[in-house]
Amino acid sequence: MKRNINIFDSTLRDGAQGEGISFSVKDKIKIVKQLDSIGVNYIEAGNPGSNSKDLEFFNEVKKLSLSHAKIVAFGSTRRKGISVEEDANVQALLTAETPAVAIFGKSWDFHVTDIIKATLPENLEMIEETIAFFVSAGKEVVFDAEHFFDGYKSNPEYALASLQAAVDGGASCLALCDTNGGTFPHEISEIVKLVCERFPSTSVGLHCHNDCGMAVANSVEGVRAGADHVQGTFIGFGERCGNANLSTIIPNLQIKLGYECIPSELMSELTPAARAVGEIANIHMSTGMPYVGASAFAHKGGMHIDGVNKASHSFEHISPELVGNRRRFLMSEVSGRSSILSSVQKIDPSITKDSPEAQLIIDELKRLEHEGYQYEGAESSFELVVMKVLGMYREPFAIDFFKAIGENDVESGEFTSSSMVKVSVGGVAEITAAQGKGPVDALDKALRKALEVFYPVLKDVYLTDYKVRVLDTENTTSAKVRVIIESTDGVKNWTTIGVSSDIIEASLIALKDSIEYKLLNIDGVEK
Amino acid sequence: MKRNINIFDSTLRDGAQGEGISFSVKDKIKIVKQLDSIGVNYIEAGNPGSNSKDLEFFNEVKKLSLSHAKIVAFGSTRRKGISVEEDANVQALLTAETPAVAIFGKSWDFHVTDIIKATLPENLEMIEETIAFFVSAGKEVVFDAEHFFDGYKSNPEYALASLQAAVDGGASCLALCDTNGGTFPHEISEIVKLVCERFPSTSVGLHCHNDCGMAVANSVEGVRAGADHVQGTFIGFGERCGNANLSTIIPNLQIKLGYECIPSELMSELTPAARAVGEIANIHMSTGMPYVGASAFAHKGGMHIDGVNKASHSFEHISPELVGNRRRFLMSEVSGRSSILSSVQKIDPSITKDSPEAQLIIDELKRLEHEGYQYEGAESSFELVVMKVLGMYREPFAIDFFKAIGENDVESGEFTSSSMVKVSVGGVAEITAAQGKGPVDALDKALRKALEVFYPVLKDVYLTDYKVRVLDTENTTSAKVRVIIESTDGVKNWTTIGVSSDIIEASLIALKDSIEYKLLNIDGVEK
Repeated sequence: MKRNINIFDSTLRDGAQGEGISFSVKDKIKIVKQLDSIGVNYIEAGNPGSNSKDLEFFNEVKKLSLSHAKIVAFGSTRRKGISVEEDANVQALLTAETPAVAIFGKSWDFHVTDIIKATLPENLEMIEETIAFFVSAGKEVVFDAEHFFDGYKSNPEYALASLQAAVDGGASCLALCDTNGGTFPHEISEIVKLVCERFPSTSVGLHCHNDCGMAVANSVEGVRAGADHVQGTFIGFGERCGNANLSTIIPNLQIKLGYECIPSELMSELTPAARAVGEIANIHMSTGMPYVGASAFAHKGGMHIDGVNKASHSFEHISPELVGNRRRFLMSEVSGRSSILSSVQKIDPSITKDSPEAQLIIDELKRLEHEGYQYEGAESSFELVVMKVLGMYREPFAIDFFKAIGENDVESGEFTSSSMVKVSVGGVAEITAAQGKGPVDALDKALRKALEVFYPVLKDVYLTDYKVRVLDTENTTSAKVRVIIESTDGVKNWTTIGVSSDIIEASLIALKDSIEYKLLNIDGVEK
Repeated sequence: MKRNINIFDSTLRDGAQGEGISFSVKDKIKIVKQLDSIGVNYIEAGNPGSNSKDLEFFNEVKKLSLSHAKIVAFGSTRRKGISVEEDANVQALLTAETPAVAIFGKSWDFHVTDIIKATLPENLEMIEETIAFFVSAGKEVVFDAEHFFDGYKSNPEYALASLQAAVDGGASCLALCDTNGGTFPHEISEIVKLVCERFPSTSVGLHCHNDCGMAVANSVEGVRAGADHVQGTFIGFGERCGNANLSTIIPNLQIKLGYECIPSELMSELTPAARAVGEIANIHMSTGMPYVGASAFAHKGGMHIDGVNKASHSFEHISPELVGNRRRFLMSEVSGRSSILSSVQKIDPSITKDSPEAQLIIDELKRLEHEGYQYEGAESSFELVVMKVLGMYREPFAIDFFKAIGENDVESGEFTSSSMVKVSVGGVAEITAAQGKGPVDALDKALRKALEVFYPVLKDVYLTDYKVRVLDTENTTSAKVRVIIESTDGVKNWTTIGVSSDIIEASLIALKDSIEYKLLNIDGVEK
C-alpha cells in the first residue's frame, strides 16, 4: 500500500492548552528540534496574534535549519465586518514568516449564527478571503474546519460549503476537526469517506480530541477512509482529555497498516523522542502509553513471563525494538520466580528458580514491598538487596551521625539549609559539613565530601534525577515518602530507592544505596 | 435501542497485573463495594489457584451482601494429560465459592502446539470438560478465549472450534480476548459479527487491551457488532498499556449510543467511583481521563472560555454533571481575562475584565507561574494572591524564626525530626517546638501549637492531603519543589501551594497560606 500520510504536530499550540502545560521559548525550540529529528512533516507552533511570547519564538525558530518539518503558524479567519487586510490577527500571522499557516474557521452553522454572530454567507466569505490572502502571500494553507463533525451532523450541506470555500480560497488541506472529541469511529469513517469523494484533489486531514477515549481510533479510521493528513500532539496532551496521540498513531499506521508517516529508519527513535518531549514539557508521562511508555512491553504475571520467554512474538503485538522501546520483566509478589531470576543471576549465576536462596530473596522482597519499596524503577537497589540476602554485601562505609538543618536567618529572613555528616571507613572517621539548596541537597554534598577522602572515584559520580512520591496521603505530612534517585559516573546510570515517613531519611537511604552501588563495583557487571 | 450490556470488571485480577499495582485484602474489599455500588454486573476478583492472599479475600467477600455484582473467580482450563478432578487449580477455584467463574483457554493453534504443547483436539477437550465440570457444580461460566483474534487470523476454524467446545461445555458467555492488544477496530467489528452469527444463543463478550491505544474503540465496535458483554478494568490500568477502560466505555455506550450498562440513576456516581478506585489502588490517575478525569471538562483557552460561557453544550460533548464531573476554567497565562475573573470576583465583585486591577492580577500571576507556581490545583492560594494585589490582605501572624532539624541519634541510630518556631501576632511573640515524622510534619505541629495560643479556632484545622512534585529534575536534589496541601476545618476544604528549591520552605509557604486562608475567613465566601 505505502500511502504517504502527513503528520501534523500541534504539541506547541493545541498541546499548550493542556492543564499544567506551559512552554518557555527555549522549551519550544527544543521540542521543534526533537519533532524535526523524528521526521514529522508539520509543526504547528503557536498563534502569533494571541501571544507576544510566540512572536519571540517565531523569530528564534527561523534561525534553525530543519531537515523534515515545516513550521506552521495558527490563526483564525478574519473577523466579520472587516477586510482581511484590516484584521490585526491576520497581520500578526504574517509576521511569523512561516512557510505554512493553519487557519481555523467555522463549519457548524450554529456556531456561525450564535457564537460569532455572523450570517452563514459571510462566514463562507471570511473563510475563502482569509485563505486566498495567505495563498497570495505565498503560504501553504491548511484549513482547520472547527467542529466539522458536529457541524456535519447539524447541517451537512453547510459544513461541506465551508470546505468548498476553503478549496476556492486555495487551501491545500482540509483538516476536519472533532473539536469536542465526541465523535465515534464509525461516524468518522462514514463522513471522511464522503468528504474525500467530494474533494478528490485536496488533501483531507483529521484533528481529533480524546473526550471519548477514541482519538487514536478516530484518526486511524479516518485514514482508512481516505484522509492523508493527521493532526495531533506527540504524546497526546492537550485541552480536556487531550489530542490524538501521534506517538501511538504513527506506529499504528506505519508498522501495523503499512502506510508511510515518517522515514522508516527513524521509527526506532520514537520512544526516545516521546520521552524527550515529556521531559521538556515536564509532565508525568503515563507509563502505559502505547508503544513508548515505560510499561508498554513490561510483563508481570509469572505464567505469562514463561510464555514470553518461549515465544515473545506471540505475547507482544510488535517487537519493542521497532519503536526503540524494550521488554521488561517486573519484579513483584504477583510474579513467579522466573521474573526475578534474571536480576538475581547477574549477582550469582549459580542460583536457579528452585534454589533455597531464591525463596529467601522473594520473602525479603515481599517484606520490603510491604514497607513501600518498589523495585520496578530501582533495579540497583534491588541488586543490593540480593547481595545482602546472599551474604555478599560488605558495607563500604558507615554513617555514624548526620544532622540536616533548615532554618531562616533571623536578620534577613532568608532560608538556609546546612548539613553535618560523620562517616567512617575501616575505623577511620571523617566529619564534615556543607550547605545546599534544601536539606537533601546539603546532605548529599556533605556525604560526598566526607566520602571522597576515602574514595576519590566518587568525584565522578553525580545525581541526574530525583523524584519524590508521597505514598499514603491519608496521613498527610507524616505520610510515607518514596524517593527515587538516578546517578551517573558519566558512563553508566543506576537507580536507587529509599522509603521512610521522613523525606530526609528516605533521601539518605537512596543516596547511600547509590554510593554503595558504585563502590561495590556492581556496575561493572554487565547489564 | 436499549440493549443491555453486561459490564465485567477485572480491576482486581487483570488490573493487578499493572506495573506498580498491589492490592491488600482490605483494598480488594473496598473496591468490590465501590464497583457494586456503581452497578457493575460481574467483578472478577482473583485467581485462587495462584495466590494464597486471594483465598483469604474470597472468604471475606462472601460476607458482603452485594446489590448488583456477582463475584467471579478466574482460572485456567485443566492441564493436559490429567482429569479435571485431578487438577489442583480447578479445585482451588471451587474453594472460592463464587457464583460465577471465568475460565481461560487457548483458541490460537500456535499456543496450543507450541506453548502448552498439547494436541489441537486435546485442547478442545480441556475446554469442554473444564467448563462442564463447573457448570455441573452450579456455576455460571464465562469462557475467556485467550488470543482469540490472533488465533482467528491464524486459523479461523480452530478458533471457532474452541468457542464451540465452550458452548458444548455449557458456557454462558464467550469472551473474545485481544490478549496482546494488537487488533484494530475494523478487524474486531468483522470478527465479532461473524462469531455472533455463529453462536446466536450465547452471550458474546470482549476483553481488550490497549497496546494500540484503541481498547475503548475496540470494545465499542464489538458491541455495535453484536457483543453484549464487556470486560475491562474500571479506570483502565492493567499489564503493559492497560485494559479497556470501563469508566470510558460505560458512558460511551450508555450516554452516547443508548445501550444500558448500569442503572441510569447511578451514572452521576461514575466520577466519584473512578476516583475512589484510583485512591484505593494508590495510582496517579491521568487528569485527562475521558469523562472522569479532573481535566476532562477543564477549559483553558481564553477565546474558547468565552464560547463555553455562551453555549456550553456546543463546546462539550456531554454535560459534565451527567457523569458526576464538573466544568472548570483554568487560570493560566494562555487564558484570557474571562477565565480568572470568576475567582477574582469572589474577592471583589466590582472588578470587571477591563479594570486596571485585572491587569495587575494577571501580571502577578505570570510572575508567579514563571517561578513554578500553578494555581490550577490551589485556588485558595490564588485568592490570597488576589487579596494581596488588591491591598485587601492583612498578615494575621508573622513567622519570626524557625529551625527544622532531621538527625540520627548517635546511640540508637534512629532518625528523629524536630522543629522550633517563633511567631508573633500584634507584637506578642510565642516560641515553641515539636517533634514529628519528618521535618515538615514537625514544622506543621510546631507552627499550629504556637498559633493556637492566639487563634483557638485553628484547633479544628488539619491537613487532609500533602503532595510533592519535583519541578525541574535537571538540577536533581537542588531542583525546585512544588508542595500542594489540602486542609479542612471539618466543613470546608481548601488547597494551597508553596514553591521553593527547599522542600521545607515550600511546605512552610503552603502551610502559612493554609492557616491564613482560614484566619482571613476567606472560606466564609461562597465557593
